[in-house]
Amino acid sequence: MTDSVTLTPDARTFEAARGEADFPHSPVARFGADTPLRLDAGGVLTSFQIAYQTYGTLNAARSNAILLCHALTGDQHAANVHPVTGKPGWWETMVGPGKPIDTDRFFVISSNVLGGCLGTTGPSSTNPATGQCYGLDLPVVTIRDMVRAQSMLIDHLGIDRLLAVVGGSMGGMQVLQWAASYPERVFAVMPIATGARHSAQNIAYHEVGRQAIMADPDWLGGRYLAAGTSPRRGLSVARMAAHITYMSDSSLHRKFGRRLQDRDGHTFSFDADFQVESYLRHQGEAFVDRFDANSYLYVTRAMDYFDLAADYGGVLANAFKGTKTRFCLVSFTSDWLFPTPASRAVVHALNAAGASVSFAEIETDKGHDAFLLDEPELFAITRGFLDAAARTVGVS
Amino acid sequence: MTDSVTLTPDARTFEAARGEADFPHSPVARFGADTPLRLDAGGVLTSFQIAYQTYGTLNAARSNAILLCHALTGDQHAANVHPVTGKPGWWETMVGPGKPIDTDRFFVISSNVLGGCLGTTGPSSTNPATGQCYGLDLPVVTIRDMVRAQSMLIDHLGIDRLLAVVGGSMGGMQVLQWAASYPERVFAVMPIATGARHSAQNIAYHEVGRQAIMADPDWLGGRYLAAGTSPRRGLSVARMAAHITYMSDSSLHRKFGRRLQDRDGHTFSFDADFQVESYLRHQGEAFVDRFDANSYLYVTRAMDYFDLAADYGGVLANAFKGTKTRFCLVSFTSDWLFPTPASRAVVHALNAAGASVSFAEIETDKGHDAFLLDEPELFAITRGFLDAAARTVGVS
Repeated sequence: MTDSVTLTPDARTFEAARGEADFPHSPVARFGADTPLRLDAGGVLTSFQIAYQTYGTLNAARSNAILLCHALTGDQHAANVHPVTGKPGWWETMVGPGKPIDTDRFFVISSNVLGGCLGTTGPSSTNPATGQCYGLDLPVVTIRDMVRAQSMLIDHLGIDRLLAVVGGSMGGMQVLQWAASYPERVFAVMPIATGARHSAQNIAYHEVGRQAIMADPDWLGGRYLAAGTSPRRGLSVARMAAHITYMSDSSLHRKFGRRLQDRDGHTFSFDADFQVESYLRHQGEAFVDRFDANSYLYVTRAMDYFDLAADYGGVLANAFKGTKTRFCLVSFTSDWLFPTPASRAVVHALNAAGASVSFAEIETDKGHDAFLLDEPELFAITRGFLDAAARTVGVS
Repeated sequence: MTDSVTLTPDARTFEAARGEADFPHSPVARFGADTPLRLDAGGVLTSFQIAYQTYGTLNAARSNAILLCHALTGDQHAANVHPVTGKPGWWETMVGPGKPIDTDRFFVISSNVLGGCLGTTGPSSTNPATGQCYGLDLPVVTIRDMVRAQSMLIDHLGIDRLLAVVGGSMGGMQVLQWAASYPERVFAVMPIATGARHSAQNIAYHEVGRQAIMADPDWLGGRYLAAGTSPRRGLSVARMAAHITYMSDSSLHRKFGRRLQDRDGHTFSFDADFQVESYLRHQGEAFVDRFDANSYLYVTRAMDYFDLAADYGGVLANAFKGTKTRFCLVSFTSDWLFPTPASRAVVHALNAAGASVSFAEIETDKGHDAFLLDEPELFAITRGFLDAAARTVGVS
């Protein structure tokens, strides 16, 4: 396996389809037949790659590495300007010099998930067996598959044990999976705004999104890249529906209320009269420029399938039996996608397993997306938890 | 104007497009140039019709009439077998002989709303100016327009004053509008699971549904009936997204949890693995057989525009100033579309206006749809409130 920061073939395929010239340049770790990736769905990837970013410097003891796990539509660009959108990374509030996840002190790794579309192998990657895009021929991937691939990246980077794994939402699912699958490889974990399984309501919302994509005639059964099309309208509707669930009723009210686009009043039409409508339309349209529709199918499915207890005889505590890993969970009062009881269920299981666990419910009206936003209490908790972990491990 | 129970031209147009032979037979009241309907959007309908059903008998004093107002995707078939679906009417639990809205005692009127698709003039009706379907040429209608049309139907039926107007959700909006527009024509009102305006979150969900419909290439800018097509996939996705909002997280969990369609486990595919997925797909597919996509645009828009206070200088109490109408409001604890605070805001305004008002919040996990379901407490409240109104008015 080798590292490369050049434009990758997979990336080119996806980008060419989107007609963009400058694909995000990330280091890419390639894995071959000597390091196959066995998937939960059955089947093995004997050729795949992981695109990642790092921030800060790995210390001599290799003891200061923190892995970030991104959410559904995130990617490796956590703390650098995003090469496609030109916007700040998704966690620049949290990660950087002097920030809660302090890159002056820690070596921070952020990788694109398996099934993603920003350089890690996913449905838009080339299937080596056919020379064509995988499309739906890529096996469905699970959260555990994503984490298994991440563990291979950590091997590749020469790190035995991570100081911490941190992430929110789907990232938090990966964090929990890390703690369950590789307890000896991770000293501390922070699962934020997440749960040990996806609820029926959350599966339902994902299904609406997938149906919106698959209803778009340009989806072409998943073979749109080869045909030079893209199910933009379907993906945009999927994003709009999902975006509402990331906010709270009160944050939407505070942000938009019933304010109109045009002060002169209603247009009595189906145009975007209300500001909340044009905001949502913008969210949908901007999303399709940076995300692949098939990847959206794969990552939503991975979340739906996540049910950590089910892998341990239906008893969540068994997932953490004998663990020495330190846990810090955070939930947000207005998050209705992963409400506080979802975090509490994990805390109860950890208590039953005798684990070291702290938990904070943060009062905010910002909804699920609070973990990505300016939340001073989250910053303080993260800083404190990581600092304690670092001091215990002896990271200066 | 005349009544007719024969197949109406409008109905034929819509039905022919759907390839169905037996259109619902409802009485239809027709209105012509002598009784024009002025619309809030500007413009006048000089030829329109209202399809309705009645149950029970109007007494000699014409004092026992109760008008039902249906919700977004309801219609006039409240208490009879639905002629398209073959299923019971949407309020058969509530309306009938000996039931809370007792048809042995009351004369119950249920009409399809303006903009609807079951016989009342809507976008699938023939535009008399062109001889073609209106499509988007029908002006956008408002809740107040719907109620204005209903008042003409009540005139037509020779009724001066209604004993009560009752309805939930969008029906509740109409009920509130009745109380504001025609206080002297209605003795008592029951707005259930509703509010005096649509919230930003609710507008957002409606916008997702509309975008799903308009993204379907078969929508053809709203001219699909003329072309013999139908945006079935878009309408189905719209219904799926909306349906989730009618239930609660806990009712979805109770009903489906994470149960799989196939006991043998995950298929690792994008088929409907989970029962909640196949349930939603079924809801979407069944809906397109009974509802017109353009009507969905019109009625959702009417709800979005509803803001009763805005019509009264921004002060909701002014909408009810000096009213003698009796109010009984009901909300449900697990309704997140019209949560209890939306009802409380109306109650506060009514108190400020010195109105006679009672209010009940019913504990249930059934979500917004609770008003359509078997809710003994709702039945008891409705029976008691209507009985008191009837006794006061002298209905035996």
